[in-house]
This record gives sequence, C-alpha cells and structure tokens, in this order.
Amino acid sequence: MVTPLFERLTAAAGAAWHAYTRHDFVLLLARGDLPEAAFRRYLVQDYLFLLHFARAWGLAIYKSESLAEMRRAHSLVTATLDVEIGLHIEYCRGWGLSEAAMAAEPEALATVAYTRFVLDRGVAGDRLDLEVALAPCVVGYAEIAAERIADPGTRRNGNPYRDWLDMYAGDEYQGLARHAARALDDEFARRGGEGRFPELAAIFANATRLEAAFWQMGLDAA
Amino acid sequence: MVTPLFERLTAAAGAAWHAYTRHDFVLLLARGDLPEAAFRRYLVQDYLFLLHFARAWGLAIYKSESLAEMRRAHSLVTATLDVEIGLHIEYCRGWGLSEAAMAAEPEALATVAYTRFVLDRGVAGDRLDLEVALAPCVVGYAEIAAERIADPGTRRNGNPYRDWLDMYAGDEYQGLARHAARALDDEFARRGGEGRFPELAAIFANATRLEAAFWQMGLDAA
Amino acid sequence: MVTPLFERLTAAAGAAWHAYTRHDFVLLLARGDLPEAAFRRYLVQDYLFLLHFARAWGLAIYKSESLAEMRRAHSLVTATLDVEIGLHIEYCRGWGLSEAAMAAEPEALATVAYTRFVLDRGVAGDRLDLEVALAPCVVGYAEIAAERIADPGTRRNGNPYRDWLDMYAGDEYQGLARHAARALDDEFARRGGEGRFPELAAIFANATRLEAAFWQMGLDAA
Amino acid sequence: MVTPLFERLTAAAGAAWHAYTRHDFVLLLARGDLPEAAFRRYLVQDYLFLLHFARAWGLAIYKSESLAEMRRAHSLVTATLDVEIGLHIEYCRGWGLSEAAMAAEPEALATVAYTRFVLDRGVAGDRLDLEVALAPCVVGYAEIAAERIADPGTRRNGNPYRDWLDMYAGDEYQGLARHAARALDDEFARRGGEGRFPELAAIFANATRLEAAFWQMGLDAA
Repeated sequence: MVTPLFERLTAAAGAAWHAYTRHDFVLLLARGDLPEAAFRRYLVQDYLFLLHFARAWGLAIYKSESLAEMRRAHSLVTATLDVEIGLHIEYCRGWGLSEAAMAAEPEALATVAYTRFVLDRGVAGDRLDLEVALAPCVVGYAEIAAERIADPGTRRNGNPYRDWLDMYAGDEYQGLARHAARALDDEFARRGGEGRFPELAAIFANATRLEAAFWQMGLDAA
Repeated sequence: MVTPLFERLTAAAGAAWHAYTRHDFVLLLARGDLPEAAFRRYLVQDYLFLLHFARAWGLAIYKSESLAEMRRAHSLVTATLDVEIGLHIEYCRGWGLSEAAMAAEPEALATVAYTRFVLDRGVAGDRLDLEVALAPCVVGYAEIAAERIADPGTRRNGNPYRDWLDMYAGDEYQGLARHAARALDDEFARRGGEGRFPELAAIFANATRLEAAFWQMGLDAA
Repeated sequence: MVTPLFERLTAAAGAAWHAYTRHDFVLLLARGDLPEAAFRRYLVQDYLFLLHFARAWGLAIYKSESLAEMRRAHSLVTATLDVEIGLHIEYCRGWGLSEAAMAAEPEALATVAYTRFVLDRGVAGDRLDLEVALAPCVVGYAEIAAERIADPGTRRNGNPYRDWLDMYAGDEYQGLARHAARALDDEFARRGGEGRFPELAAIFANATRLEAAFWQMGLDAA
Repeated sequence: MVTPLFERLTAAAGAAWHAYTRHDFVLLLARGDLPEAAFRRYLVQDYLFLLHFARAWGLAIYKSESLAEMRRAHSLVTATLDVEIGLHIEYCRGWGLSEAAMAAEPEALATVAYTRFVLDRGVAGDRLDLEVALAPCVVGYAEIAAERIADPGTRRNGNPYRDWLDMYAGDEYQGLARHAARALDDEFARRGGEGRFPELAAIFANATRLEAAFWQMGLDAA
C-alpha cells in the first residue's frame, strides 16, 4: 500500500511538524491556561488569514483542469465565505471582538508571511504546490484538535477554549480534512512523481514553520 | 452626470461593437433562419467557453481587495458552476448534445483566442482589466438580446432559437448585466482614471472583435 | 535509455505534428513558391508573437525555483529582446516592413490564440507546463528547418526565403533548440512523473495545432 | 507642478516612513556601531531577498504592455542577476560568508513576509501595484544612504560599513532610484488616477512596515 502523501510530508518535516502541532499555544489552549490576550490576538489575525484563504481557493478555481477540480475549489471558497467567516465573526463577537475592529487591525508579520507564502507557491507552481502549502493548515488543524481531544491532560470542563477544540475535532471538520488529504494523493498521482517530492516537502516544511510562527505571534501578545 | 464606462467603451470600439452585437449569426438567429449546424457548433463551443468563464471569476476572487469584491466574484462562479453550466447542459440535451460529447470536442480557434485573451488580461492587469475584457460577453449579451427582442423583424412564433433570446432578454439576466455594468463604474472610480481609458478601450475593442469571431466560428460550421 | 520527453510528445501528437512541421506554408517556402503576401503576413504576426514570447520567458523567471533556472529564462528574454526582435526588425526592413507598421497591425486570431494559450498554461500550471507549451515553437522550428534543408526538393538558389531556413537550420539556433529539449527532460525529472504525461501531451498537441493555424493564417493572406 | 507620486506615498506613510529609513539598524550602521552579527544576518537575508527581487522584475516583464516597459523590467533583472547578486556574493565573501552558506540559510520571517507581499501585490494587482510595493526598497535605499552620508554624525573613517553606504549613495544607484521614481509617475499617469491613491498608499505603507521589520530582524541577531 502506498503511504499517503500527507504522512510522507509530515515525516519529512521532522521536528518542525510537532513544533507546530504541539506548540505551547496549542498545549496551553487545551489545558485552558492560554492567556486570553493570546487567544484574542490569534482570533483577530485568523480573521485576516481567512480572507487570503478564500483568495487561495479562488486561485485554485482558476488553476483547475477539470469541472470536478473546479467544483471542489469552489466548495471551499463557499465554505470559507458563507460559513467559516460567518462562524468566526459570531464566535469572535462572543469574545467581544467586532468584525469592524478585526478588519481594521494591521496584519501581523506572521500572518503576512504565511498567507503570501502560500499564494506565491500557488501562483508560481501548480495546484499541487498550492494545496501542499495549504495542507499544514487544512489537514493540520484536524490532527491538532483530534490529538488534544484524545489527550487526558486536556481540560474539558470549564475550559474557555473548549468550543474551538470541539469545532476542529468534530465530524464535519475531520471529514473535510480527510477529504483534503485524499485530494493530495489524487493530485500527486496525476501531477506528481517522485522527482517532485523534495520540493513539495520543502514547501510543506516551510508552511509548517510559518504556521508555528502564527501560534507564536498569538502567544507573544500575552 | 458621468457617462457610464460601458457606454464609453462601446462608443470607443466604434464599428466593431455593432459588427459583434449585430453579427449575421445574431440576426439570423433572431429571424429563426440560422442553420441548425451553426447553432449546434456555437452551443458546444459555448460550453467549453463557460469552463474558462468560471476560471476567470475564480481569478477575480483571488484578485479581490475586499470581502465585498470577493463575494461578488464568488457569486458569479456559483452562478456559472451551479446554474449556467447546468442549464446549458440541459438546453443542449434538447438539441441532442450530451455533456460528454461537448467536453470531448476540441476547442475552436475563436474559443481559445477569446477565453485566453480574457484570462491573460486578467492575470497581467488588475481586476478592472479583467472585468473590462469580460464585459462584451457579460453586458453585451444582454444588449444583444434586448435589441433583438425589441426588433419587429424578430420572429417570435416558431423560432427554434426563441428560448435563447428570452433567456438573455429576461429580467434575471438583464439585472445581472446592469449590475456588472455598475461594477465597472465602481472599479473605474476606485482603480481607474482617465489615463487608463485608452488601454481599457483597447482591451474592450479586442475582446469585442474576438466575440465577433466567436459568432463567425458558429456560422462557418453551417 | 530513456526516450527524451520531446520525442514522446511529438509521437503522442500523432498526425498533428507533421500537419504543423510539414504544413503547406513550410513546403512552399522551402520550394521558394510561397506567395510573398503570405510571407509578409507571417513576418508581421511573428513580430507581434515575439512580444508575447518575451513575456512568457519573463513569466518563467518569476516561476524559477533556483538561480540556475532563473538565469536560463533570463538568457531567453535577453536573446528575444536584444537579438531576435532586432534581427526580425532588420530582416523585415529588407521586405519593406517598418517596425512601426508591424506594431500597428492588429493581431490575427491565430496569433492571439497561440500566444495566450501558452501564457495561460504557464500561469495556471507550472514552469514545465509553460515550457511544454513553448516547445512546438522553440524546438519545432529547429526540426522544421533541418528537415527542409536536408530535403532535395528544397530550392537553394534563388529562393527568396533561403535566409529564413538558414537561420533556423544554423548551428546557433539548432544548439538553442537542443538545449531547450534537454531542459524539458531535466524539468520532467524534477517536476514530472508518468501521471503528468497525458496532460502534458494534451498541452503539446494543442500548442502544435495552434502553430499549424499560425502557418495557415499566413497562407490565407495570399 | 504635480507632486511626484513617491513623495506623496512617503508623506501618506507618515511616521512609518522614518521608522524605516531612520531605523536603529541604519543609524548604528552609519555610526559604525552596528554589531557585526546584525550586519551578517542582514547580508545573508538580503541575498535570499535578491532572488525574489529578480523574480519580481521577471513578473514585471510578463506584465508589460509595451516593448519599452519590457526593456526596463528586463534591464532590472539583468542588473540583479548579472551585477547585484555577483557584487553581493563578492562583498559577503569579504565578511566570510560563502554563497553556498547563504543559499542554505532558512529565510527569516521578515524576509518571507516582505518578498511574498510584494509578489502577491504584483500578481493580484497590475504593474503599478508591483512597482509601488518595490519602491520602499528601490527608491528608499537611495534616500537612506544619501541622508546618512549627508549627516555629520555619520562616521567616515574606520567605519566597517562605509562601503555599503557608499554603494547606495553613489551616482549609479542614485540614478537608478531617480529613474525608478520617475517610472512611478509615468505609470501613475497611464494607469493611475486619484481613486487609486488610497490603495497604493496602503500598499506602500505596508511594504515600508515590512522593510522596517527586515532591519529589525538584522538587529535581533545581535
């Protein structure tokens, strides 16, 4: 049986992978010990991130070679613009953050670095490069949440961040992430080849490192 | 009052504009005299065109500078992928053309030329360049259908192409076209300036010429 | 030994390959029987083509993943802007065509179709897609000229198009084409894989078909 | 007389402009007090920056609308690949940094953020957006060096960074920067308009902020 591409990419990223998925931000959040200021900072920047995330899937529509590929990219733009951004805004309102306030906030260095890195790989490379650059986020969040929910050290009761973990550990998001991981395999079969692996692994490792910097940017606000 | 950009662009295109909107293909269609082979050829190539039309609006999502701009581009991808392509496939089935048959057809020179010209202007320029390149299609079809429906020479009864005219002369499409024309004015206010007009007019005139070649490609099949 | 990618691509293009490389335009030119109007039409459109050819290699600079790749793309922009366009202008002057006259000429449908098809593949895909789309031109012209020069039916004395054949059959251009063919193999090793072959073959076949349409556009002017 | 666009952009950037041009890194460098580790860190990251700078001008070739525009972008790729990177490598050798060592260094967050921000504006917008995003670097370095050289507080003798200041304060670079500033005015006349100013000012201010973060990244290494 062939090892799924996502597994190969995380293995190749080595220590950088857990430096991201088990970053202090995540561990503190799971224990309910994350300073509120860190979480708020993260929420605001994640809102700004989502705008570029939608742009990335718009780019994927343009880069599609078939109607099926176009429909999948389109469904992710729809999910982002019609569902995720809305949920995010609603969720943030619960933390006292208005959409106008978030939209007015300057992008942090880590936000600029990660989002534009992804878009650059996506424009300069092909759709496989783009989806590999997005995978630490799309598939990684599902792994992060599932791992924390399974961890006995995670605080379930009275954890102010419980909703966040539940959302990404929930069936809907886990299904979306599995789907995205399978799409990587399909595209690697159609547009990949072993010769591409080193460059794809480099993109994945860089994106992973930039995602860890995103958590750190949250922590640094505390 | 400021003259709308679309009016200025059609005026600047001069004779090329009516060479497109009053092309023999259109006049024959309105009179019900268009050879069926010409219409079938057009339908198949228009299906192939729609795939690149959806890509163009995906590109516009990527090129958006605000959530509002993104939502408008997204709504046009949705309309194309979820409604127009479906209607087109259904309509073509009535003419004995299956989706598989259309997808297997090679693109005509005129189809490649128009679609890739639009995408190139869209990538190399900004979103205003992209929308100006699309305007002869998006807004032009509404003008073509409205003009023909208003023409006493148009055959209403027993015209096999009546549905086609009604679709583009109908309220829904006319509203969409008015909306697109207004969007041109908004973008010209935000990203334009008189200095840009000559280049925008050149893009519009070229796109118009390529649309006329698209009609001609249909006629040449008869 | 591995079959070079270029050979595999021409084989996969089948009859379309010779419909391009042995197009009547080429055969008539080699015999010295090409109507002058056809050649002039070709020269003017080829000038307009070169502008987009330089843009394509500029795009390749942006798409480069290493300094070596960047330098190769840059050398092709340099060759086009500093040498080829100059030679072309000088050569055309000999045929009574001024640069201003050529720049003022509208692009033919075949010119728009081929150049924008290449650029679209190049932006939507990766650098390998771009170079495969350019190969029927870059490598194909060398094959065309070498084949005609080797053909006893080719008129050597008193052939007004002899210079054109000599330029592309000459050592310099033949070396450039061999280099470009080898670059395809290198990139296929690094960014390819058998899964990509069908799509690359489709790009190559389409570009070949569009190149044949370019010759035909020349002939149609006669 | 019309105020040059560059002046309007720096005025609109407000305090952010001097936070960049008079950043501690610059002031310490001019006094000869910059820790060597800070300068080395800067040199390595500036090498990695130059690779993306060349890509940006490659993109500008693709985005050109005329042969003259293409030639200017091409000359900047040539200057970067054939001159600047070479000088940089030679200069760094004097500081004990080999090219291989620099190429192997991971990009700092500030390097990723600035370079990819520029490229994203360049792809999503038009060539004016691209050149405005590059201006804090291209034109800003000339202003920084000229201002420091004119400052009596700058140490001339025994300043290990004197060469660096002289290079950017020298006639050649000052001429290049003046040329780039004039090109902004030309493009603003052709592709601009007051409506674009707020968005262009936002791009310029963001790029300025990211340039300041680049200096800070150097300082943080000390």
